[in-house]
Amino acid sequence: MTDYTSLTPELIAELKRAVQPADVLVGSEIGEDYSHDELASVRVHPEALVFATSAEQVSAVMRFANAHHVPVTPRGQGTGLVGGAVPVHGGILLDLSRMNRILGLDENNLHLTVDPGVLLMDIYAYTDKLGLYYPPNPGEKSASIGGNVATNAGGMSAVKYGVTRDYVRAIEVVLPDGKIVHMGGGIVKNSSGYSMKDLMIGSEGTLGVITKITLKLLPAPAFAKSMLVPFPSLESAVGAVPALLNSHALPRSLEFMEQEVIQAAEDYLGRKFPDKSAPAYLMLTFDGNSRDEVQRQFDEAAEICLSHSALDALIADSDERQEVIWTPRGAFLEAIKASTTEMDECDVVVPRDKIAEFIRFTMRVQDEEQIRIKNFGHAGDGNVHVYVLRDELGEAEWEAKLTKVFDRLYSHAHELGGKVSGEHGIGYAKRDFLAESEDDGVMALMRGIKQVFDPNNILNPGKVV
Amino acid sequence: MTDYTSLTPELIAELKRAVQPADVLVGSEIGEDYSHDELASVRVHPEALVFATSAEQVSAVMRFANAHHVPVTPRGQGTGLVGGAVPVHGGILLDLSRMNRILGLDENNLHLTVDPGVLLMDIYAYTDKLGLYYPPNPGEKSASIGGNVATNAGGMSAVKYGVTRDYVRAIEVVLPDGKIVHMGGGIVKNSSGYSMKDLMIGSEGTLGVITKITLKLLPAPAFAKSMLVPFPSLESAVGAVPALLNSHALPRSLEFMEQEVIQAAEDYLGRKFPDKSAPAYLMLTFDGNSRDEVQRQFDEAAEICLSHSALDALIADSDERQEVIWTPRGAFLEAIKASTTEMDECDVVVPRDKIAEFIRFTMRVQDEEQIRIKNFGHAGDGNVHVYVLRDELGEAEWEAKLTKVFDRLYSHAHELGGKVSGEHGIGYAKRDFLAESEDDGVMALMRGIKQVFDPNNILNPGKVV
Repeated sequence: MTDYTSLTPELIAELKRAVQPADVLVGSEIGEDYSHDELASVRVHPEALVFATSAEQVSAVMRFANAHHVPVTPRGQGTGLVGGAVPVHGGILLDLSRMNRILGLDENNLHLTVDPGVLLMDIYAYTDKLGLYYPPNPGEKSASIGGNVATNAGGMSAVKYGVTRDYVRAIEVVLPDGKIVHMGGGIVKNSSGYSMKDLMIGSEGTLGVITKITLKLLPAPAFAKSMLVPFPSLESAVGAVPALLNSHALPRSLEFMEQEVIQAAEDYLGRKFPDKSAPAYLMLTFDGNSRDEVQRQFDEAAEICLSHSALDALIADSDERQEVIWTPRGAFLEAIKASTTEMDECDVVVPRDKIAEFIRFTMRVQDEEQIRIKNFGHAGDGNVHVYVLRDELGEAEWEAKLTKVFDRLYSHAHELGGKVSGEHGIGYAKRDFLAESEDDGVMALMRGIKQVFDPNNILNPGKVV
Repeated sequence: MTDYTSLTPELIAELKRAVQPADVLVGSEIGEDYSHDELASVRVHPEALVFATSAEQVSAVMRFANAHHVPVTPRGQGTGLVGGAVPVHGGILLDLSRMNRILGLDENNLHLTVDPGVLLMDIYAYTDKLGLYYPPNPGEKSASIGGNVATNAGGMSAVKYGVTRDYVRAIEVVLPDGKIVHMGGGIVKNSSGYSMKDLMIGSEGTLGVITKITLKLLPAPAFAKSMLVPFPSLESAVGAVPALLNSHALPRSLEFMEQEVIQAAEDYLGRKFPDKSAPAYLMLTFDGNSRDEVQRQFDEAAEICLSHSALDALIADSDERQEVIWTPRGAFLEAIKASTTEMDECDVVVPRDKIAEFIRFTMRVQDEEQIRIKNFGHAGDGNVHVYVLRDELGEAEWEAKLTKVFDRLYSHAHELGGKVSGEHGIGYAKRDFLAESEDDGVMALMRGIKQVFDPNNILNPGKVV
């Protein structure tokens, strides 16, 4: 499987000297959680777990690993779904969760500089207090910002505000040879050489370890209002999306849900959703800086939905009423997970007018392959989360079906002009699908770039490329 | 200077067979214009000029050049200011201006696919008719979109809408070995491997030739209104900027101008600016989808400016009145150019609260080095265009002073946390300054990436890295 060096007691001693002995755990000192991520579809126990506390320490670990040919896998909170933070070749698991300070706000430029281990929820708490806004809104609020940058996390605000990439001004990176370098800057525009910052964003810890991040913030919008819109079918629901996006009522969030997924969330949370009488729903949030502006968007969107066969347009304008519809949305993943024994997911993104077609296809696959499949996702940006559920299938049958189902889903997404991952990344689990979907010439360039950054292939090997 | 192969008559004959003989010009058949760009600070006549008409033809040229070790320099409209499109090592100049078709609009996804030679002004004309909006707004409207992507062009709307990078969904690229590959897709989010598309954007034709581009469009804002705000000093003008950007009145454009630059534009255009009684001005444009929304922003911004010592806040709400203030702004570059014998420019970008400090520094350099320096630029994004004027200086003195002035400007920008180029790129002229300002480790990675894409160094050699 690997020609990497195993961590002998001598090497462990050297590693402990390179950092702080107390920051290094080995073998059975390491909890089982560190062998997998949130989805746990691949499990490998690390030989050593190092809790990093500074860029200098990360640099020392990388120099050690590079000299001895030991693999290093960076890890934030382990909330990934594609095995990106699993040490599939053993070696060192480099935990960045203790680097969790908010380092400073530049109020004039609206730049927030943070450690990579700061949680998304901590950033929201910090900015909320100051009337500031960090727009990216991935589902998992306990994820670390470093992991968000490493995967170019998306989330529910992408339709209006974009994704993590759009809010990263600068990063500090420790390269595989231990060099500490800086990419980007506290500036708004940049045409100064190749955008190394953009190459790092979404590279899933395979090119360097991100040790500091400067984020762009916005002033918080003053008002927001949500709308829950029942439709007679999923098709009519997503059919309204292009008209909404081409209007002057661009929502911050635009999600679709089907009745059965709402039911699963109700069962899981033990609380009622305002309405589940219709087969499919759109959920929208509008924001702006005056009540009138938000109302104008709301009215225009309601009219568009009703002219696209919506059954109603339910308003949620208080915080409390908004919470009632968005909390179940946030629980979908957990609810689906709780309904089965094991699952795997496909995070495809398709052109947004192809969502209905893609979801119809998943239903056909469900019937033909005799396996439960659940969908939910971002109607506004074409990113569909498809969950394939194991239920009572035996190991061999599950593996075989999953492979077949994934092959069918990814190749259909590819035919529709889509990509393997909208926001969760490639990690370990989706490498073959990436290779199949990209031009050979592009894959060769990606491998060449990996080689430039990490000639000894010690940083998160076995991932992405 | 080079170990490249010269184009012998035999090679020219082979090149003509590889494309269409009529598309190849050689030696004195090639106009003088093709030896330089807009600024003309470096001039080299190409050995051959090829007018490309398709990606397949570009591919044939690259295969020929790669096999024979002949340098190829891609060129759009030659409106650059840093020598990026000048064939400094001779060889083939690959002109993409005849690939100028608008290929198609995807109305559901608001994606516009174009040839690289389409002009920016043609894109605006096309989208305007349809009520759509391509937000990037670089000064030079006769530039080609391919050149805009290659330099990640910025422009006056960046403060609210971002730069070219933010509107490129997908590109078709011919690699130096002739392979035709695709990067990105007609999708909104993407976490599928390294972002090769982002690496290509801003790489200034050194990694591949862009032969097709899919742009993201927005619905056009329904209303816009501009404001001209006189201030008692440049310092007080740019001092109001952070408060504006932290407010709920985010302008689409936020430019600063000094009295003497307005005077130069008046002289050049032979028409009067609405006001030039004050030493410095901010010009702002607000847009939105209702009159009320635009008015609310306008009022809030006027109040902020007046509380930051603005002398007045002059409204321009008709198209005609807006044109009266923005046309002179568009003429600054030409006006300054017409006022001297030769000039060179520095396109630095600094954190936006450091603009005043940087401009004060340019004034000090002007005095100390006894050379005329003119500034204008984007107050909203920290991008300052500094023009150093030759006037009556002799060749040797001009070169010596220019080098010294540039050294001082770039190193001061670097101290302030800035970068070499906000939007014009590095090209030929700014390579040394890039190398000085980036970490050595980052420059080494850039060179490694160039090597991966172009191992024979035949594509736009001598640029960027």
